[in-house]
Amino acid sequence: MTTVELRPFYCPVESKIHPDVEVIEERAIAWIDRVRFYRDDTERRRVIGTNSAEFYARFAPGGVTGHVQAAAHWVYWGFAFDDARCDSGEFAGSPQEFLAMAGPLQRALENPWHPVAGDDPFTAALQDIGRGFAACATPTQVRRFCDAHRAWLFGVAWQIACQARGRMPDLADYAPMRLNSSGGPPTLAMLEIAAGQEVPAAEMDSPAARALTEMAMLVAAWDNDLHSYRKEEDEEHTAINLINVLRVRGGLGDEESVVRAYALRDRVMCRFLRLRSQVLAGPVSGALRTYLDNLGRAIRGNTDWALRVPRYNGYSGPGSDPRWADEPSDPCPDPVPIPAIARWWDSF
Amino acid sequence: MTTVELRPFYCPVESKIHPDVEVIEERAIAWIDRVRFYRDDTERRRVIGTNSAEFYARFAPGGVTGHVQAAAHWVYWGFAFDDARCDSGEFAGSPQEFLAMAGPLQRALENPWHPVAGDDPFTAALQDIGRGFAACATPTQVRRFCDAHRAWLFGVAWQIACQARGRMPDLADYAPMRLNSSGGPPTLAMLEIAAGQEVPAAEMDSPAARALTEMAMLVAAWDNDLHSYRKEEDEEHTAINLINVLRVRGGLGDEESVVRAYALRDRVMCRFLRLRSQVLAGPVSGALRTYLDNLGRAIRGNTDWALRVPRYNGYSGPGSDPRWADEPSDPCPDPVPIPAIARWWDSF
Repeated sequence: MTTVELRPFYCPVESKIHPDVEVIEERAIAWIDRVRFYRDDTERRRVIGTNSAEFYARFAPGGVTGHVQAAAHWVYWGFAFDDARCDSGEFAGSPQEFLAMAGPLQRALENPWHPVAGDDPFTAALQDIGRGFAACATPTQVRRFCDAHRAWLFGVAWQIACQARGRMPDLADYAPMRLNSSGGPPTLAMLEIAAGQEVPAAEMDSPAARALTEMAMLVAAWDNDLHSYRKEEDEEHTAINLINVLRVRGGLGDEESVVRAYALRDRVMCRFLRLRSQVLAGPVSGALRTYLDNLGRAIRGNTDWALRVPRYNGYSGPGSDPRWADEPSDPCPDPVPIPAIARWWDSF
Repeated sequence: MTTVELRPFYCPVESKIHPDVEVIEERAIAWIDRVRFYRDDTERRRVIGTNSAEFYARFAPGGVTGHVQAAAHWVYWGFAFDDARCDSGEFAGSPQEFLAMAGPLQRALENPWHPVAGDDPFTAALQDIGRGFAACATPTQVRRFCDAHRAWLFGVAWQIACQARGRMPDLADYAPMRLNSSGGPPTLAMLEIAAGQEVPAAEMDSPAARALTEMAMLVAAWDNDLHSYRKEEDEEHTAINLINVLRVRGGLGDEESVVRAYALRDRVMCRFLRLRSQVLAGPVSGALRTYLDNLGRAIRGNTDWALRVPRYNGYSGPGSDPRWADEPSDPCPDPVPIPAIARWWDSF
């Protein structure tokens, strides 16, 4: 299975990182020690070891330092929450327990000024994050983040439901599920907060901008599937991820599934690049330009972070870095055969 | 239990109805017969008998006829979906089956131009509704509706999860759950579509407008609980509704629960009226003014519809109609003791 790790990713976007990444990381660790959503020192080390400050510093290299800080807090929180309550544990095994926990949690974010009953550290920390966004973001940015956060929890609940039913979803269902369940919606909703530039509603809600946002989410989510596939090679092949979906429901062999996964991913990546160029060639606001730029950085940064790429390692052209491909593994410009996302190939 | 039915509702808003209600109803019935999300003639009669055209004609009495039409279609669909998949049947009994059905359904709405696999008539009809909104609403209005639709399905999933756990939620959880699970989010998201006036993002996403939207949702949802309580009097008292929450988790008697339910509802109603006056006294757009006006009509219209009030029956002052109270049953201006909604009483 090491073939997976060694295959290069196609993402012709230069690597960049926020110059204040060290300060952001240091302050984030102090914040983590204040809100304490870890139970012991092992968990604390694991949370800090996610390098979430670096992760988000790659997403918004030109962002306002204090805003990137607020976003990084959510990323640390999100990884810890994912570990504790989405990927394993009592909630991951039961859609009903997950929903009964996630419902009040989402509301606590929407209404962060009034502490809720109980002493759940994840809830209290999320309310702290919510107050942080309220202090630095516009009401529209905050509302977008909250809606995106609910979309994520809805996607996670759906994925947990599939696991509980013991049925691997098919590709038609897996694509829209994964679009939300990977944490992409809140992570990308923070881009404009980090940039300190609100994208006008008419631009952000336009079909093209929505399609571009979703494409960036899915490429990053599928990349996560590819990154984690090798790590999970010793486990049974029952985890819900792109490769297993193609293997179990698509009837492909191990190697074929991996090749097909890269092909699908690269076709979405290519469509993202083409549609983004088309949109940027028109009259767009500076805020949208920055946002669309950072969607590309999110795809690149997510993989730089996952591959533990040194902090200041850029993309420097053909053949220079075996981690990155200069050409897509499948350049086919047609829509992928997934109705839920076929829209992305429509004319905009 | 007839005490419940006979108590008057406090909502000093004049009753109005769209003048084209008959035409809208006639066309909606033709649409229902085209998309056919009913299985037999009994179901067809039940769908049509919801009087959804009248329902929404009360919500948007001054709306653009063709837009109110599109909204009415969703209301017919929503009542039928609620009956078939939220309140009873295989999905209502299983959070995991509900999520595995609702996840693809939500995505089908977001992407209504590409038919999905399978032949679920609810999905096909919802895609038809989505295309209808795309044809008459702005991209921002469509996006708001889609987000609201997801919030509703998330709320329903949460309520189904509570039922599956066999535990009556407490008031702290029930309020935010019911806020979304009753269908309020999509129903109210259609107000600005019906009006044909997009509310600017800075206004719609402002904390005060969000609070007012949520208050209208919760009053209408609690009113539904009160309306349906009497219908359900012969059933076991296990249904999740405001009165049972107060009885089972609050330790109140039957009569006390009802009195307390009205008191809570009236306190939110009073806060809605006060905050709305405050907002309208400031500089607001015409679109926001219409929207806030229609939030009040939604509360009034929902109950007019539920009580089968004759179509042209207005509110004509003190003591004139035993269905309507001239004063709140509890005029206390303090926040209700529910952290998740205490925000509504903050200063805006």
